[in-house]
Amino acid sequence: MDQDILYHLALGSESHDLQEMFGDVKFVCMGGTPKRMENFAHFIMNEIGYKLPAGTQLQDISAYSYRYSMYKVGPVLCVSHGMGTPSVSILMHEMIKLMYHAKCKDPVFIRIGTCGGVGVEGGTVIITEDALDGQLRNSHEFTILGETIHRPAKLDKKLARELKALATADDPYDTIIGKTLCTNDFYEGQGRLDGAFCEFSENDKMAYLEKLRDNGVVNIEMESTIFAALTHHAGIKAAVVCVALLNRLNGDQVNAPKEVMHEWQQRPQILVARYIRKVLSHNGQLKSLFGHQGSIKSPRRFKLVQQESQAHE
Amino acid sequence: MDQDILYHLALGSESHDLQEMFGDVKFVCMGGTPKRMENFAHFIMNEIGYKLPAGTQLQDISAYSYRYSMYKVGPVLCVSHGMGTPSVSILMHEMIKLMYHAKCKDPVFIRIGTCGGVGVEGGTVIITEDALDGQLRNSHEFTILGETIHRPAKLDKKLARELKALATADDPYDTIIGKTLCTNDFYEGQGRLDGAFCEFSENDKMAYLEKLRDNGVVNIEMESTIFAALTHHAGIKAAVVCVALLNRLNGDQVNAPKEVMHEWQQRPQILVARYIRKVLSHNGQLKSLFGHQGSIKSPRRFKLVQQESQAHE
Repeated sequence: MDQDILYHLALGSESHDLQEMFGDVKFVCMGGTPKRMENFAHFIMNEIGYKLPAGTQLQDISAYSYRYSMYKVGPVLCVSHGMGTPSVSILMHEMIKLMYHAKCKDPVFIRIGTCGGVGVEGGTVIITEDALDGQLRNSHEFTILGETIHRPAKLDKKLARELKALATADDPYDTIIGKTLCTNDFYEGQGRLDGAFCEFSENDKMAYLEKLRDNGVVNIEMESTIFAALTHHAGIKAAVVCVALLNRLNGDQVNAPKEVMHEWQQRPQILVARYIRKVLSHNGQLKSLFGHQGSIKSPRRFKLVQQESQAHE
Repeated sequence: MDQDILYHLALGSESHDLQEMFGDVKFVCMGGTPKRMENFAHFIMNEIGYKLPAGTQLQDISAYSYRYSMYKVGPVLCVSHGMGTPSVSILMHEMIKLMYHAKCKDPVFIRIGTCGGVGVEGGTVIITEDALDGQLRNSHEFTILGETIHRPAKLDKKLARELKALATADDPYDTIIGKTLCTNDFYEGQGRLDGAFCEFSENDKMAYLEKLRDNGVVNIEMESTIFAALTHHAGIKAAVVCVALLNRLNGDQVNAPKEVMHEWQQRPQILVARYIRKVLSHNGQLKSLFGHQGSIKSPRRFKLVQQESQAHE
């Protein structure tokens, strides 16, 4: 074909110099909402000491797709994937093609998400060991040309252990490894009683959640099987790190105050940032990033100048 | 429970007076991207002659969810649903609960989308007769408490015919009724050769697309079965109106110029606007909307004043 258009990213293989733009990418971090990934981009920029040239700010590279948002912070690409496996499927195809066009070497893909805990308290960080579908199979079901096939939903166990090892005794929360159930719905599909429909009883729901727990399931979300299946199929090292927003054994609605939720959502980001720092540091790349001259010499004075300037409007 | 939180809409049954806010809603229009639904909101505002009070503009009601966008134009609610059936599933549960809390009477749900045509040229408007899943079943598969169930993916045939009847001989494009295939992916799932993976030949693909055509399928998208199944289950009158962006029998990549695509995407909106005008007019509500005093007496002079003002900056 004339050129490969990555429609949902607003990029093309002949319209953009993808190797120039993305050739240095080592980490692809994904999460549900554009807002969370924009926050993560600013957070990771600080964590790896990456400095933007004076007079520049981060730009949503995929803004014109009106579908996904993408921010690039040196070797880290931060992309939103929307909700549910089909939305992730489209993104994965285009991200894998993007890595290919950009000639990226062994990029690591990490999904940073939120989830419901199963026997696990709100605020717990969960690293996925295996992603299970609604029938508790460790695979994702694809329908291709009308045929149903399964591809293993395997994540990198060594990477999961490496991430787990970066949790510290000082963290005021647990970081665990366990199985993740991936569903196609948030309400009926996750055994919630508070959807528009509910044709099962509270007892049925509890029996189901307890069955999940007995099978080693520690959390429920909506993206892990496709993320694991497509990265595994492409030979890409990948992990899923989520924070539980509630313990589903105690209820359906998320009731934690906004500030608490906000702090919880930073926890997977903190763990992933430690991992990225460690890898960059090991490769001697962290120093080179920190070596760049930034524009802020004194944060305190910087703030004062901003305030002074504002007062003179 | 204390209150019903519609998380993904950033609304709550006790935090917001949902009946006051949404009690007058008669039409719920949904589409993939926030941008398209914002455009539709402005379009329908003009079409039904709805006037905003001086000094106000449309606001994204669900902005704080960072997930879906929602705009309200009098009796018309315009909501983005993201990509794929799980994303639509979450929205449908919350929209149905919203209609219930707001005590809306018989709202009509219409999905306005884009699709690939099967033996149908780009620019054709397609009204869905039946929504089929990947195995060509006229149902949507749900996994609830680990059990697989099917619910009929039925749309309102009378509404489909009513919409079709609003196409005019003057329209420079066809408006047809046919079966719609709903898939869980855009690449492999729709038989495209240009995804990150492709394990079938062009001949396999063509045989599959021809099989679809022989079964009465005229278009392929990613949301219709869940939209049909949940509206039908809730007893809500619903329709799906899409525009084809290409004829898949001729290729995989969408190559129409931006201006052409833009004009095509307005076509389902034009048809739906005709329907909304017709219903409001039949109920004597259109006149009352048009009766409101707007702020623009002369569009030409309005523009001149804006330009004058700008020149004096």
